[in-house]
Amino acid sequence: MFRKSATLLAGALLAASTSAMAESDAEKAVEYRESVFHVMGHNFKPMAGMVKGKIAYDAEEFATRAKRVAQLAHMPLEGFKEGTADVTGTDAKASIWDNWDDFTGKMETLQEKSAELAKVAEGGDMEAIKPKFMAVGKACKSCHDDYKKED
Amino acid sequence: MFRKSATLLAGALLAASTSAMAESDAEKAVEYRESVFHVMGHNFKPMAGMVKGKIAYDAEEFATRAKRVAQLAHMPLEGFKEGTADVTGTDAKASIWDNWDDFTGKMETLQEKSAELAKVAEGGDMEAIKPKFMAVGKACKSCHDDYKKED
Repeated sequence: MFRKSATLLAGALLAASTSAMAESDAEKAVEYRESVFHVMGHNFKPMAGMVKGKIAYDAEEFATRAKRVAQLAHMPLEGFKEGTADVTGTDAKASIWDNWDDFTGKMETLQEKSAELAKVAEGGDMEAIKPKFMAVGKACKSCHDDYKKED
Repeated sequence: MFRKSATLLAGALLAASTSAMAESDAEKAVEYRESVFHVMGHNFKPMAGMVKGKIAYDAEEFATRAKRVAQLAHMPLEGFKEGTADVTGTDAKASIWDNWDDFTGKMETLQEKSAELAKVAEGGDMEAIKPKFMAVGKACKSCHDDYKKED
């Protein structure tokens, strides 16, 4: 009984270490896109706080974060490459790959709207920023509604 | 005995779930900087492959990745904010906070060198790119040598 358990344990450890060593290209791509979205969210949240008046508006910080989101908006798409549909445990719905043109179109909308926000944010006028920020939030939500699993 | 084990288990689960729910600002900052570095590394590696001739040189892809690294080089620093020195299980050496000016200076060097690389990469001349790429690699290594724990 002990020997059997030890063998099972050794097998499990071996499987775990092999799996850790041999991360597939698709798994790497998923990790990449999740990292991009994480960095994007980190920069998006303080802007949301400032727009909602929950954090004091800091024009320089807002403009920096808006620029970053606009830059990052060009990065996640390669993380949805072929094969990543088969990676389990992600937030991505399989419908992405059945609606690829719509999905990439929504990503392009994010790129456009975040570029517009970054531009207007340089001016430092919160009243001008608000509608541009809302358009970025809408672009995020539009894609999440269709292609991201609920938490 | 069973009751004691069950109580310990319940306590451990509670601690784990509480910890998962109440991620501190410092832990969030660490997760942020690790995500930035992950995205940076993902974009850096294919450039290294092209410079070394292990991957066919694709001028457009190289320029895109060089631009991304230059953009990302401005993002990680805020992830090293006060309090993050106390987060365990990270690759950051405590010496960062004892040598803050040197650390931020190395980060600025990365920003400068990666901006130079992004600029020259637009020209598509691999012979001109090589020394600029090496300078970026040196900037990464210089900081890792002093401030990143060995894997």
